[in-house]
Amino acid sequence: MDHDVEATARDRRVSSGVRLNGTGEFGLIDRMTARLPQGEISLLGPGDDAAIVAVPDGRVVACTDALVEGRHFRRDWCDAADVGHRAAAANLADVAAMGAVPTALLVALCAPGDLPVQWAEEFAEGVADEAGLVGASVVGGDTTSSALLTIVVTALGDLQGRDPVVRSGASPGDVVALAGRVGCAAAGYTVLSRGFRTPKILVDAYRRPEVDYRAGPAAAIAGATSMIDVSDGLLADLGHIAKASEVHIDVTKDAFGLPQQLRDAARALGVDPYQWILAGGEDHALAATFPSHASLPPGWLIVGKVSRGEGVSVDGRDWVGPRGWDHFTRSGS
Amino acid sequence: MDHDVEATARDRRVSSGVRLNGTGEFGLIDRMTARLPQGEISLLGPGDDAAIVAVPDGRVVACTDALVEGRHFRRDWCDAADVGHRAAAANLADVAAMGAVPTALLVALCAPGDLPVQWAEEFAEGVADEAGLVGASVVGGDTTSSALLTIVVTALGDLQGRDPVVRSGASPGDVVALAGRVGCAAAGYTVLSRGFRTPKILVDAYRRPEVDYRAGPAAAIAGATSMIDVSDGLLADLGHIAKASEVHIDVTKDAFGLPQQLRDAARALGVDPYQWILAGGEDHALAATFPSHASLPPGWLIVGKVSRGEGVSVDGRDWVGPRGWDHFTRSGS
Repeated sequence: MDHDVEATARDRRVSSGVRLNGTGEFGLIDRMTARLPQGEISLLGPGDDAAIVAVPDGRVVACTDALVEGRHFRRDWCDAADVGHRAAAANLADVAAMGAVPTALLVALCAPGDLPVQWAEEFAEGVADEAGLVGASVVGGDTTSSALLTIVVTALGDLQGRDPVVRSGASPGDVVALAGRVGCAAAGYTVLSRGFRTPKILVDAYRRPEVDYRAGPAAAIAGATSMIDVSDGLLADLGHIAKASEVHIDVTKDAFGLPQQLRDAARALGVDPYQWILAGGEDHALAATFPSHASLPPGWLIVGKVSRGEGVSVDGRDWVGPRGWDHFTRSGS
Repeated sequence: MDHDVEATARDRRVSSGVRLNGTGEFGLIDRMTARLPQGEISLLGPGDDAAIVAVPDGRVVACTDALVEGRHFRRDWCDAADVGHRAAAANLADVAAMGAVPTALLVALCAPGDLPVQWAEEFAEGVADEAGLVGASVVGGDTTSSALLTIVVTALGDLQGRDPVVRSGASPGDVVALAGRVGCAAAGYTVLSRGFRTPKILVDAYRRPEVDYRAGPAAAIAGATSMIDVSDGLLADLGHIAKASEVHIDVTKDAFGLPQQLRDAARALGVDPYQWILAGGEDHALAATFPSHASLPPGWLIVGKVSRGEGVSVDGRDWVGPRGWDHFTRSGS
């Protein structure tokens, strides 16, 4: 660890002021991979045609998620490490939402030639640091020149012998529960959009989500019947479970704590804070359903119930307002 | 199969003229996933937070590769299915170059909102068709809006109990061999760059590479000591083997057949055809080293030898001219 820190400090001095078109593709790959510690699961890390990852379970969980500058992040709102953390978190949370433990990431960085090498290095460190929270390694990737900074991360995960927790398993009578905060990232986004930089707790929640990855496997062990990563917005994502499971989900507004800073920011900006909570994505909380008799693991909070029918309601009524985010229509859905 | 073809014909009629911002993210995902048949290895295909792929070997091969419009493909040069085939091939070839059999792909499509839905559908079919050549399934992915059409594919593969064939295993005395054509894609690229659309065989080689994926596992079984997918250019990629293995590689020009159409096109365009063969990438041939006593599998042709030293030479001399492609400096390297 000390060695890594020293190497980082030295390399940062060297690359200060250097841009990608000055170091070349292979120089960039060398600089980035030097920042990627390999765990035991990584049987062959970066540097060959492909990586090799140990899969003791005999099944591998795999997902991929893209972040495009200007749409998913802005370099004036988030530093390079933040973007790295967010890109990793979006994928690690998807793996956790299957009830699995993330083991490896692959990272494609499509970047303008005038991007400072230091940005790419700090980005790589952000990815590796977020992966390190769950013991996952960044085992490979690709770099290429692009006019538009675009990051695509693929995550692999291990089910540890358990059945995956899919979206289609919810049954009438189940409870709906949530692990992790919702609404803070959306609030932070609104704050930044209006030109403010505080409250810091909200802005930071947007910049670098804090995901309780262990809540996913814990939910699987506790008997979760369905689970999803809340990235489109809570109502939209519960809608995916309702549709896949052919059930109705009702959410109880009062079940959500309303942190003082969220309440204050909502009042100051003239926003309904429940709009952030119920329709905001990017906190990467996990939502799941459990049989009503199940003992919920630590960190899970009951926020609703499953019944016969279809769709999602809030306190028994339709929610007026956007339920989440659609990446093509740019409108709430 | 008949069912799929019918479904495709019907859906194409529906989506003719529709653009991505008219169908929305989830509509697009539904339209694309309808075109992705799932093989036995796919334990859970598209539609959840992550896919689940069977990995009987206990180790999974994984790699990722990005294609950016204007840099890796042009929509006026390649149709959507071509781009799908190429995006898949680049990754499937990397898996084969480890001596593994590709099993699954994940596809991230970052696309402008005004992209015709039909383009995305035909692209998905191209990816699935190329994957189908080796029995691999497209198990998941992501779609998002982006001003710049960018495609990132991740491939997974199965080593079938064998050791991977890495870049670092070449030894002095080994022979260097090649499976698949080299130079045709580069020639096709030059032809298109100069505004021509023929000879068709060269243009088609650029648009849709024909990769002998089985040559990778066959080489592993035959005892290949190192292997690489030729994507940067033959000399550049052999340079990666020479560097990783700490050996010298000499390539024999006369070992390469010079197809008549390549010769004719080179004369017409005033290009040295060996520049295409030795420095052109994107045919996704496989290059490998074998012990001199090894019986080479069908399709493998000896093109050089390994000795003590470093670097790559052609007929014992330095090659004058570019050796391949660097994605950031835009210059030959």
